[in-house]
Amino acid sequence: MRTPEDVSCRAPDTNTDVIQLAHGGGGRLMHTLIEEVIRPAFDASPLATHHDGAVFRAANVPMAFTTDSYVVKPLFFPGGDIGSLAVNGTVNDLAMCGAQPLYLSAAFIIEEGFPTADLRRVVTSMGEAARCSGVSLVTGDTKVVDRGKGDGMFINTAGVGAVQAQTPIHPSAVAPGDVVILSGDIGRHGIAIMAAREGLAFETEIKSDCAPLWTPVRRLMDAGIELHCLRDLTRGGFAAAVIEIAEAAGCAITIDETAIRVPADVRAACDLLGLDPLYVANEGRFVAFVPDADAASALALLSQDKVCADACIVGRVSAGDAGGVRIQGPYGTTRRLAMLSGEQLPRIC
Amino acid sequence: MRTPEDVSCRAPDTNTDVIQLAHGGGGRLMHTLIEEVIRPAFDASPLATHHDGAVFRAANVPMAFTTDSYVVKPLFFPGGDIGSLAVNGTVNDLAMCGAQPLYLSAAFIIEEGFPTADLRRVVTSMGEAARCSGVSLVTGDTKVVDRGKGDGMFINTAGVGAVQAQTPIHPSAVAPGDVVILSGDIGRHGIAIMAAREGLAFETEIKSDCAPLWTPVRRLMDAGIELHCLRDLTRGGFAAAVIEIAEAAGCAITIDETAIRVPADVRAACDLLGLDPLYVANEGRFVAFVPDADAASALALLSQDKVCADACIVGRVSAGDAGGVRIQGPYGTTRRLAMLSGEQLPRIC
Repeated sequence: MRTPEDVSCRAPDTNTDVIQLAHGGGGRLMHTLIEEVIRPAFDASPLATHHDGAVFRAANVPMAFTTDSYVVKPLFFPGGDIGSLAVNGTVNDLAMCGAQPLYLSAAFIIEEGFPTADLRRVVTSMGEAARCSGVSLVTGDTKVVDRGKGDGMFINTAGVGAVQAQTPIHPSAVAPGDVVILSGDIGRHGIAIMAAREGLAFETEIKSDCAPLWTPVRRLMDAGIELHCLRDLTRGGFAAAVIEIAEAAGCAITIDETAIRVPADVRAACDLLGLDPLYVANEGRFVAFVPDADAASALALLSQDKVCADACIVGRVSAGDAGGVRIQGPYGTTRRLAMLSGEQLPRIC
Repeated sequence: MRTPEDVSCRAPDTNTDVIQLAHGGGGRLMHTLIEEVIRPAFDASPLATHHDGAVFRAANVPMAFTTDSYVVKPLFFPGGDIGSLAVNGTVNDLAMCGAQPLYLSAAFIIEEGFPTADLRRVVTSMGEAARCSGVSLVTGDTKVVDRGKGDGMFINTAGVGAVQAQTPIHPSAVAPGDVVILSGDIGRHGIAIMAAREGLAFETEIKSDCAPLWTPVRRLMDAGIELHCLRDLTRGGFAAAVIEIAEAAGCAITIDETAIRVPADVRAACDLLGLDPLYVANEGRFVAFVPDADAASALALLSQDKVCADACIVGRVSAGDAGGVRIQGPYGTTRRLAMLSGEQLPRIC
């Protein structure tokens, strides 16, 4: 039998503790969500107006443009969260083009039922990360998908930057004689995510290395270091980055494995999980390819930034064996580094 | 009892008919997917290099920057698909800023198990839509989420354009005396999606109006029409756009409902479903706020483009009742147009 409740026209659900489908509908609820939760993290200048897009005046230099979606799981992890990751990741892609990060967009795909408090936390983290890199969040978008059709929250950021490099920073500029500088230890981000996702407890808490990289890159450029190629070591880790560059440059690269720092706790976790740290993702590390003559100065400059304090030379570029990367292990053995077909750890960014 | 199959180390799944998690892993599978399926739609120039971002030289004019994610369901519908929608939607947001669309990014979040053939179809559609608007897809990203944690495919596009408007096109420029021009009939997109999603069959197939709008906007600007504000009529439809502009401009707007064209089949579907076409989303329609003196010329110019062939004046701006929108119905009655709290139809874009 139908009760009166069944046939009554219920008032709209005004519970704003969780995100509802209606929050993505372009109506009053969406406007309130944007104004109260999301906009505070965005640039307050007239740039970010209530309009279909932001307008900025570009300097008369080449501009870099990049995008990344972030589907990291879990959303919060030691050393960061999806918000800081989404800002730093795109800031770093611009930095790797030799570009000063200027403007970011932020687009959210939120699953119905997502806690509004978590959205607020993520957005606050994005605002902090943006301020830290001197970049402005200027335009955005919010979509809501029905329960079970997403996974909490996905974020896309796109970034625009002003290229400061005098010569193109690109794999094709890599040449025999270049040295490979690695900006720090490797493996923290991937293992931190894995531990948080699977509830693994190690003796020490492994924190993600998630960090912005524009400051050290600018320092190298300002000092006139001849930067041939820069690449941050995200999906696929150090190995994928170096192999990609070797293939694109048509050069051979030899890596000295003993020069690569892997924190003891990361190495222990990798041993336990059967992972090779060379392939584990990082979010605050990069490789720089520079001429041998500039290597010492580059290292001295990088050491001025905490995020690059452990920078060191880990390899060299030579002619022949186009695209081949060989790595010399601790016992003098040499093996060829191959690209994995997939990824050891899905959804790390 | 365990059979030998249980304990054997199986070879990686090389089925590339469907997207696998490994396709998002930064390894060989992802590279193959990008090179073979995705890159063909992208700009072939050195702009879109194998690097972390694209580099372009901006003209010395203000640049517009915008982003939108697309979560439309279903992915394919009469009159378009998520690919053409993702390109046209962002092209239109740039056009609404008075900006010539130049460069787009495209970021895919794909659910494990998604048919590769469908991805190819979507990407091809994006390439065609981009060529149609003279915009270049220059940078992208591909992520894969596990089965059940997405919904086939979500796409984000961000766009950069060169602002051609001499004066800012913005709600704050709207002034008493302006007329409201509507570029065509309304309601097609939302109803087309609804029909496709729910398997509703009407006597005629209702097609989405999904279309790029830069050409008619440029035509207005080239002719020196004083454009105060432009807004495309997506989520929330005509009503939300006009209410938002009235509120931002602090003006009153009076709409003549009898001047608004709703196709007969759309009206019949709306009656059946209990929807008000004023609130139904469109993807190829916009309103333009221009001074009375420019209205006739603007209409004559718009009629030159097929997508705007039915453009007409539907309202006027006046002082007083700041933010209020009143609509005069067919029987001389007047009502206040209110913004919905949510959306009649979720996931229409």
